[in-house]
Amino acid sequence: MNELSVTERTRHRRFREKGRTDRTALYEVLNAGFVCHLGVIADGVPMVVPTVYGFDADHLYVHGSVASRSLTGPESTGRVLPRAGDDVVADTVCVTVTHVDGLVLARSVFEHGVNYRSAMVYGVPRTLQGEQKLEALRILTEHAAPGQWDYARQPSRKELAATTILAISLAEASVKVSAGPPDDGDGPDAELGLWAGVLPLATTWLAPVPDPLLPEGVALPDHIGERAGTRLS
Amino acid sequence: MNELSVTERTRHRRFREKGRTDRTALYEVLNAGFVCHLGVIADGVPMVVPTVYGFDADHLYVHGSVASRSLTGPESTGRVLPRAGDDVVADTVCVTVTHVDGLVLARSVFEHGVNYRSAMVYGVPRTLQGEQKLEALRILTEHAAPGQWDYARQPSRKELAATTILAISLAEASVKVSAGPPDDGDGPDAELGLWAGVLPLATTWLAPVPDPLLPEGVALPDHIGERAGTRLS
Repeated sequence: MNELSVTERTRHRRFREKGRTDRTALYEVLNAGFVCHLGVIADGVPMVVPTVYGFDADHLYVHGSVASRSLTGPESTGRVLPRAGDDVVADTVCVTVTHVDGLVLARSVFEHGVNYRSAMVYGVPRTLQGEQKLEALRILTEHAAPGQWDYARQPSRKELAATTILAISLAEASVKVSAGPPDDGDGPDAELGLWAGVLPLATTWLAPVPDPLLPEGVALPDHIGERAGTRLS
Repeated sequence: MNELSVTERTRHRRFREKGRTDRTALYEVLNAGFVCHLGVIADGVPMVVPTVYGFDADHLYVHGSVASRSLTGPESTGRVLPRAGDDVVADTVCVTVTHVDGLVLARSVFEHGVNYRSAMVYGVPRTLQGEQKLEALRILTEHAAPGQWDYARQPSRKELAATTILAISLAEASVKVSAGPPDDGDGPDAELGLWAGVLPLATTWLAPVPDPLLPEGVALPDHIGERAGTRLS
């Protein structure tokens, strides 16, 4: 079953040709980044916060602390901090992951656009506890910083307690991809004789910058050094 | 008056040290990108859509068509398409612009994090008409693709009518910046002897890719060619 569920929310109304509904496309978009934009409702108003994520076959895991106000603050949604047995902390949220691949420079301003890959996931988040939380934090850490879970000191019980990890099902998701040259290459504007094409963007890891407090002689591990010069998305 | 208004929504509850309230910081963040995440409420659920933006001293301008369903669809917010004299198309929206500058690799997983610059703007969008819409579209186009407004064919009356531009006041905005090395360089974990530091990310314009339909002999204009190799953020 490679089809993503198509609900009223995730059915594409515009740019229908850009919609993708297969799971592989979803995983590809999620794999190409590690910061998402989490949308919640706080005090009746939408709030969009950037936060770190990871994922497995069925769930997106987001670091929930940045959204703590809206997800758990009694002054906002009316909900309080989750108690034992209460694993639903909020109503439906929307998580969007976007990679901007380039500018589409057409002959006309009207046909200008952006090449991008974007995934939207809707779901009711659950706060994870115990082993599930630890495993989700491992997934999230390894997604953003591969190799660090085993290299760095793993969380203490106290640190884990101070960490909020939300799990959101990937069941209701959609992917949009826009790629390729401008659309007006065979229209009347082609006769204007203007240059047209794509100005691509690349997001690349640079050389690691050691902590100024790092003592001399501490070797840079391969799993970090190897990323320098590679593309994130 | 360089202070951004601090309302209940934009007051920083977490990471207080990361909050900035001056206008210069806001402009810097907005200047370093051209795709934002627009958060709206559709059918009682938050929806986060990536879209192109531009700005001037007092307003953010966003291309509204991507959000047309939630902003104007009668099935969602209960509002209908704006009529003459009706320039408010939605309740408050949240626009977030985020630049991910790098991964903070600490000695402990718990202290891992992201260096980023982010701006959040809250406001009730207005749909622009006539000269205001044309000027906002010019600002937005020149922000994303400097030089293209005068180089490419400008919108016809019909194209302009088919374009939705929303203006959102910059009066209620906040900026968060997180930068620098990990925090555990002088704590007990420093004795673990692990490498720690920052793995920076850079977003860079690559060489322009001509439209395959472009006839030979059309010169690449300087305003496009000059961007190749420069950093976006």
